[in-house]
Amino acid sequence: MVKPRQLTLALDASQASGSIALFEGESLLYASYFNVSITHSETLMPQLDAALKLTGFAPAEVSKILLANGPGSFTGLRIGLATAKGIAYANRCPLKAFSSLKLAALPRMHCGKNILSVIDARMKEVYAALWDEELNLIHGPEVCPPQAILDWDFDNVWLIGDGSHILPADDRFKSLHPNSLGYVPAIGLYTLDLLSELDDVYDFASLADLQPFYLRDFSAQIQRNN
Amino acid sequence: MVKPRQLTLALDASQASGSIALFEGESLLYASYFNVSITHSETLMPQLDAALKLTGFAPAEVSKILLANGPGSFTGLRIGLATAKGIAYANRCPLKAFSSLKLAALPRMHCGKNILSVIDARMKEVYAALWDEELNLIHGPEVCPPQAILDWDFDNVWLIGDGSHILPADDRFKSLHPNSLGYVPAIGLYTLDLLSELDDVYDFASLADLQPFYLRDFSAQIQRNN
Repeated sequence: MVKPRQLTLALDASQASGSIALFEGESLLYASYFNVSITHSETLMPQLDAALKLTGFAPAEVSKILLANGPGSFTGLRIGLATAKGIAYANRCPLKAFSSLKLAALPRMHCGKNILSVIDARMKEVYAALWDEELNLIHGPEVCPPQAILDWDFDNVWLIGDGSHILPADDRFKSLHPNSLGYVPAIGLYTLDLLSELDDVYDFASLADLQPFYLRDFSAQIQRNN
Repeated sequence: MVKPRQLTLALDASQASGSIALFEGESLLYASYFNVSITHSETLMPQLDAALKLTGFAPAEVSKILLANGPGSFTGLRIGLATAKGIAYANRCPLKAFSSLKLAALPRMHCGKNILSVIDARMKEVYAALWDEELNLIHGPEVCPPQAILDWDFDNVWLIGDGSHILPADDRFKSLHPNSLGYVPAIGLYTLDLLSELDDVYDFASLADLQPFYLRDFSAQIQRNN
């Protein structure tokens, strides 16, 4: 009997840009990153289908799903979570959700300083969290105006994430050009899973209950959108 | 008159895995990474075509090409360089070539230690180079047996690259799980270009003369392959 292949799908539609990655066991087979004007509802499934075809897997072979579950874009979070839930439900496979802020901090892990990860929350606010260099949470996550971050208690930090450029300049920030990191978030989800203590289990009730991590008040947001 | 868009294509077919990235000006639009059993000659052009279609560009709009030009796989290097030359020739656009070892070192730039980047050279050898944390070259590049690296003059270093696991264990090495870095090399070429002092010029003679950086003796390699 052929041993079933272990295929992990990682996906991040929580931001304006999206990414997916496919792993067979420990090995990264494929990843894509897309930052285009069409929406995740148009890009995510075709990207996933192209990835599966190139790597020679069928959708039914996805045996584990890793998801960036916010904070982030109101609609993007829902598209990512609904897609992930749909596949997990069909395949009866585990779905594990991780913080988009922790994911943003990952490429500067073990680089000698604490890490301030910042995501553009629109409406003149940012999502932000402060981590030590091993990615333990020190402060946050919070949604707040950019200048409010300057009152947080920190010394020299790596500043990282797509909201970095919104913060006022401050001598305590060290950052690199975003492309320097060559970073595709969906790939990093593999490491957040390794670092986590979550079990790989499929459980319908937990899957159905899983909510996006939006930080803002949902009802207020929904009213504002109407 | 509409201002022409600045489209940069970055590509790396120098290793067993490959990657491409598209930038409009400073902005990363799309990237893909593929580590599949079919060859670069089968994957590279379809990946590029899918990327251009998704981002809404025509091949003739590529206005600059960045290439990882080795050391690496004998055939992969030639496919990458020939593809890049073909597009540069057709579009009369600059083609800029960079070290695959420097590219491998990039994600640990400014992480407090020197960086030893190592690529699997097959035939029980590795390609390796030692960089300071700002990516200035300290030692190498060399092609040599893995154990020979241990005689190089270095203290604690970041060990990085797809040949890392081939080196004998040594207390001076610090490394992370490869997926931790979430790194897609083609994206990093953007930064190597920023750090370089190469001009963006199209020149037929230079383009035609550009050779892959293989490190091994070509004729010996060709004999061995025959």
